[in-house]
Amino acid sequence: MMKQVPVGVSARHIHLSPEHIEILFGEGYALTEMKPLSQPGQYAANETVAVIGPKGEFGKVRILGPARKQTQLEISRTDAFAIGVKPPVRESGNIEGTPGIQLKGPAGEVTIEQGVIVAARHIHFHTSDAEQWGIQDKQELKVQLGGDRGLVLEHVIARVSDDFALDMHIDTDEANAAGASNGDIATILD
Amino acid sequence: MMKQVPVGVSARHIHLSPEHIEILFGEGYALTEMKPLSQPGQYAANETVAVIGPKGEFGKVRILGPARKQTQLEISRTDAFAIGVKPPVRESGNIEGTPGIQLKGPAGEVTIEQGVIVAARHIHFHTSDAEQWGIQDKQELKVQLGGDRGLVLEHVIARVSDDFALDMHIDTDEANAAGASNGDIATILD
Repeated sequence: MMKQVPVGVSARHIHLSPEHIEILFGEGYALTEMKPLSQPGQYAANETVAVIGPKGEFGKVRILGPARKQTQLEISRTDAFAIGVKPPVRESGNIEGTPGIQLKGPAGEVTIEQGVIVAARHIHFHTSDAEQWGIQDKQELKVQLGGDRGLVLEHVIARVSDDFALDMHIDTDEANAAGASNGDIATILD
Repeated sequence: MMKQVPVGVSARHIHLSPEHIEILFGEGYALTEMKPLSQPGQYAANETVAVIGPKGEFGKVRILGPARKQTQLEISRTDAFAIGVKPPVRESGNIEGTPGIQLKGPAGEVTIEQGVIVAARHIHFHTSDAEQWGIQDKQELKVQLGGDRGLVLEHVIARVSDDFALDMHIDTDEANAAGASNGDIATILD
């Protein structure tokens, strides 16, 4: 049985806490949806923020909604070199001890003390997909991407939930190293 | 026997023909060496050129010397998106049908008709290394990079010559996808 998974390429983006949305966009502000993402309930917002690092900045970083408990900026290692920060590779939500960064919105600025990560490559599985393929939550997988830049990604973390839709999330460095694009099909190796 | 190879990360760079050096830097101009590279006789020059694409530009792209028969710009896929060109993955020297680009130096400008590539990942072997490990010129290898972003690069092209020193050349996208840096050690898989 071929375990095939669609590829979703994550460009740099940010998740904001309700508190930081108010600081950056104004009291009582609510994010507005531009388009839905592959994971149910998640969306790319119309809103962006500026991210200012020690060596450079990105003027418009897309906000993904809805708001989360903690603000988290996810950038590639290429991005990290460009703005002069040294984020570790982390799973989403695990931001303890990560670098901070300055954020600027239309209504204000805030410097977060931590929250900058390079996202660890992972696959979202609906519980039914994971059961069918015998895959456990948190399991590390090897995943092949084809083509003339083909490669096998190791340490791809399985995340299993009834709230997830089947999708492998890699960042732009990983996609470009593999010559891969959104919607390509990857294969989980045994 | 572990077949271990040092990693060399190639940032964007350009090789210039003698004719283009004169157009960009002036009649009779000769490149000057900033530092030697891993391959015997090759060097990073003090000189840089501006590279101007349809959607963006890089102000200072390092020239690698000595001059070559054909001008060739080697950029990452990340770079390619940034400046709006669509180079194929190619071996060095194989530029037929690749996109052109505008170059600007202190003495003049030139638009090349072809020569922009994403360099195919490859390993330089001295003939004696290749013989010891049973590796043939042009052979495609699988090469493992370790760490928490570990991955296996496929289609790594072996290039064997008495003029080469052992070194694997990957670009910044590949290095960043693997969390790898100059001087890391990669392992050729059987």
